[in-house]
Amino acid sequence: MSITLGPNRYGKAETRVVRIDRDSPRHEITDLNVSISLSGDFADTHLTGDNSNVLPTDTQKNTVYAFAADGIGPIEEFGSRLAQHFVETHPPTRQARVAIEEYGWLRLHVGTAPALHSFLRSGPEIATAVVDFDGASLTVVSGIQGLVVLNSTDSEFAGYTKDRYTTLPETDDRILATEVSARWQYANGQLQDWRQSRTAVRAILLETFAGTYSKSLQQTLYTMGERVLEQRPEVAGIRLVMPNKHHIAVDLRPFGLENRKEVFAVPDRPYGLIEGTIGRSGVATPGLDW
Amino acid sequence: MSITLGPNRYGKAETRVVRIDRDSPRHEITDLNVSISLSGDFADTHLTGDNSNVLPTDTQKNTVYAFAADGIGPIEEFGSRLAQHFVETHPPTRQARVAIEEYGWLRLHVGTAPALHSFLRSGPEIATAVVDFDGASLTVVSGIQGLVVLNSTDSEFAGYTKDRYTTLPETDDRILATEVSARWQYANGQLQDWRQSRTAVRAILLETFAGTYSKSLQQTLYTMGERVLEQRPEVAGIRLVMPNKHHIAVDLRPFGLENRKEVFAVPDRPYGLIEGTIGRSGVATPGLDW
Amino acid sequence: MSITLGPNRYGKAETRVVRIDRDSPRHEITDLNVSISLSGDFADTHLTGDNSNVLPTDTQKNTVYAFAADGIGPIEEFGSRLAQHFVETHPPTRQARVAIEEYGWLRLHVGTAPALHSFLRSGPEIATAVVDFDGASLTVVSGIQGLVVLNSTDSEFAGYTKDRYTTLPETDDRILATEVSARWQYANGQLQDWRQSRTAVRAILLETFAGTYSKSLQQTLYTMGERVLEQRPEVAGIRLVMPNKHHIAVDLRPFGLENRKEVFAVPDRPYGLIEGTIGRSGVATPGLDW
Amino acid sequence: MSITLGPNRYGKAETRVVRIDRDSPRHEITDLNVSISLSGDFADTHLTGDNSNVLPTDTQKNTVYAFAADGIGPIEEFGSRLAQHFVETHPPTRQARVAIEEYGWLRLHVGTAPALHSFLRSGPEIATAVVDFDGASLTVVSGIQGLVVLNSTDSEFAGYTKDRYTTLPETDDRILATEVSARWQYANGQLQDWRQSRTAVRAILLETFAGTYSKSLQQTLYTMGERVLEQRPEVAGIRLVMPNKHHIAVDLRPFGLENRKEVFAVPDRPYGLIEGTIGRSGVATPGLDW
Repeated sequence: MSITLGPNRYGKAETRVVRIDRDSPRHEITDLNVSISLSGDFADTHLTGDNSNVLPTDTQKNTVYAFAADGIGPIEEFGSRLAQHFVETHPPTRQARVAIEEYGWLRLHVGTAPALHSFLRSGPEIATAVVDFDGASLTVVSGIQGLVVLNSTDSEFAGYTKDRYTTLPETDDRILATEVSARWQYANGQLQDWRQSRTAVRAILLETFAGTYSKSLQQTLYTMGERVLEQRPEVAGIRLVMPNKHHIAVDLRPFGLENRKEVFAVPDRPYGLIEGTIGRSGVATPGLDW
Repeated sequence: MSITLGPNRYGKAETRVVRIDRDSPRHEITDLNVSISLSGDFADTHLTGDNSNVLPTDTQKNTVYAFAADGIGPIEEFGSRLAQHFVETHPPTRQARVAIEEYGWLRLHVGTAPALHSFLRSGPEIATAVVDFDGASLTVVSGIQGLVVLNSTDSEFAGYTKDRYTTLPETDDRILATEVSARWQYANGQLQDWRQSRTAVRAILLETFAGTYSKSLQQTLYTMGERVLEQRPEVAGIRLVMPNKHHIAVDLRPFGLENRKEVFAVPDRPYGLIEGTIGRSGVATPGLDW
Repeated sequence: MSITLGPNRYGKAETRVVRIDRDSPRHEITDLNVSISLSGDFADTHLTGDNSNVLPTDTQKNTVYAFAADGIGPIEEFGSRLAQHFVETHPPTRQARVAIEEYGWLRLHVGTAPALHSFLRSGPEIATAVVDFDGASLTVVSGIQGLVVLNSTDSEFAGYTKDRYTTLPETDDRILATEVSARWQYANGQLQDWRQSRTAVRAILLETFAGTYSKSLQQTLYTMGERVLEQRPEVAGIRLVMPNKHHIAVDLRPFGLENRKEVFAVPDRPYGLIEGTIGRSGVATPGLDW
Repeated sequence: MSITLGPNRYGKAETRVVRIDRDSPRHEITDLNVSISLSGDFADTHLTGDNSNVLPTDTQKNTVYAFAADGIGPIEEFGSRLAQHFVETHPPTRQARVAIEEYGWLRLHVGTAPALHSFLRSGPEIATAVVDFDGASLTVVSGIQGLVVLNSTDSEFAGYTKDRYTTLPETDDRILATEVSARWQYANGQLQDWRQSRTAVRAILLETFAGTYSKSLQQTLYTMGERVLEQRPEVAGIRLVMPNKHHIAVDLRPFGLENRKEVFAVPDRPYGLIEGTIGRSGVATPGLDW
């Protein structure tokens, strides 16, 4: 059994770039964190230290800045341009992955007028895109991280398995709170209205979370994904990762008080963690694999 | 020179409590992180381990939950109630400090209707209050943390001292970005419209940041504080801590490109750090001391 | 194309448990963070909210505590016991994954004598294990995180591809610094001397890093993995993730000084990121897949 | 009541600098995070944007690098050199504060031989120093952060005040765990054997924690400080901040098991927080004020 180099990749991670569009007095801001990862014919640098096939990660960083000079646009597009560039101009690269986080900014106002060049960071939500290019086709996975939501009622949890270690009482009314991480793969990685699609997916996720009576966080998760697929034909599949952020009603009886589901302690850990992919039968979504 | 116990305090830090107001079908949420600190006649537990004057920090945590059962209201008020309680019911306490962080939530919608019991965490901004009670008077310091703002122009930096270690070129057009931490002390710690005052202070800070041409971050900081004091007589003084989050225009000339102040690298560290108190002559603001 | 539930799993994440072995006056401490994830016949809770197959995550947490009462031992063993328990006692579970982080503690001394029951947290290093059980076989992947190492010389980087975006000068003497994340899969998931194997792997990684002249971080990474496989037959394969933590020699010439590779700035981001699996030909290591 | 500028300061925060001493084949590493803060005659930049008294924070960063070229030495000394420089060469500065964090590194081995130029980051402990210079005298405060320690027995907590909100049972045997933050001021800011003094203080803190039976964390804290002052005449006073990191014995009875103080849950929050200064009667320690 000889020793061999298996799957490997390399690249520049977390290049932070801000672009200001200033062609008009009304500026626009784009604020990104770009991570690049290349795989391909890179065995020599591992095995012998021969770097002749290695495009330095410093060059990758420079490329991000240089491409930003031409404008950025939706992160799915910027990621696609970068991924294609590395595969097409640097032959040892057989696959390029570009993962982008985008931070949101709101426009400030001066009096009632929108400011021309002043912004306030929104958050904690982050928009994400991961683009893979293999020389032939683009795989585009958009996402959202940090969407923290809470229903203060219309959530129950009952009818579950009990074993000797079960102490949790059933409940017909609890807080349901989570921090949604969503990633959805597009059926077609080619140009589409990325921003409109993202906005629509986000709205469906939020509205479904708010509008669904929940018998389990799993049911809520599945319904959220199902609604996205029902309403957005451009989406091939979606993966949701949703921690169950427990809110524990505090026992106030020792203090002579009743807790009418009003006062909750919020432990940081442990937390439930629910993960699921919702797809279309017969449609592969390799970009969503664990 | 005998060895002595100097200033000391103790308490329960970071009790996370969520309260749901559910008297009507339209729920409200309050989400707090409460830290309590007591000082007074607590030398014995240090010197001999005699705990007879010690109110356990676990009891302090319970008190937060029990008080939340009666409703929370503005954090300045909740902090005042708690601070007064400890001083008034536990005589060894000569001073109680209650520091509260409040996390914001937005109401979700289902269709066009505001949801009755569904919320989305806003942020990254946090509202703060620190209340001190010494048995006689309340000192109330409200604050905001995590207000990240950016002006993409109308900022210069020139005319500064140069020494042998100075390499920074002067500039008449740079990005000015910061994360505002503000704390302001009220002239009178008694009941007032805390929420309206907070909303107004926040609006003045943002509008001043957006509307001020900046020759230095110090000038921007001072003007922000000055406007608050001009417009809000209830504020005795304000302290602002503002890191200068540098945005460095990338040199694109090696790639045959020009950077028309559009593409910026954003290092995490180091950063400038500007701190200043703006007050009223003859008015002490001990709650704002470093 | 009907909508379908794809891969899904759920469990309790980050149960923090400390065990004190106190059968003798000389206590021992074990400090863990345990995350459990079950997959199997759990579609109903997603599709209809029928929880009859769901073992609550709260029960999983309780199980961790209850199992700890019998002693913990090496984390690979504790993870195996837990993973087997869930598959064997809760039939809807077809696969259980238990991921454990272990925090290290050193024994303090009083005078020259080892303390009986006093400990100091070591770190920042963390030991990890991920155990998968599918009802038939155990897959055990051990790991280390947070091993931050630095060579102050004997590292070069040259001979790489240059394109129009390349500005990096070649160097024959640079700092090589990284934070090693290592995961290695055992050829056989059954009982072995886990602690001795872990200690040996760690020592090989450190000694190889220190003892290898580096033409690229990739070469260093590969050599580290290769040596582990050469010397430890029980290891089927190893995956190393190593950020290139750049140390930039500061240009001191503007100050009339020379930098003889003594003074370095250390940016947080961006950083290179090198990832690679080293295996044995013909031996699958599914536990190391990206 | 006219509006006035109160206390203000500015500087460059968190300049990360690594120095490699390489005069001999056996290299040494020093790894710092340096923050500078100047106060003095800086009102003009606030009030009018006149920067003529402002030494740019970028220059301050350059100064850190330039001074590192001459060697660093103990952080108390490096901080003193920098603080004196700014006050002495830039007259508007009336006070300079230099705060330094130092990260520890261990030397790796190759075989049994100490490596010449390979290091492993130790931690999580950090050494700190804060030096203030006002043109006349140096105030030097050394410190340690991140010293996480635990006694698994010999700690009780009883005899405390009970009120209507008290539910905590008294205990004669609990885990006592904390993360020590210590700062101690030197009686004389002039040159002394900083490293030997730091090593000694650290050893006393650890040995006292380990060797003291505890009736309260306050008692432990005081004893730790007292021992430092008893044994180290160069220390004028010490301030200790020690969170009570609760370890809760898990109730295993529902599972038919007994918990013989062996299995503990470890919540992240809330935590007790104990703070105290131990000094010498008649000796002021302004550097330790809250």
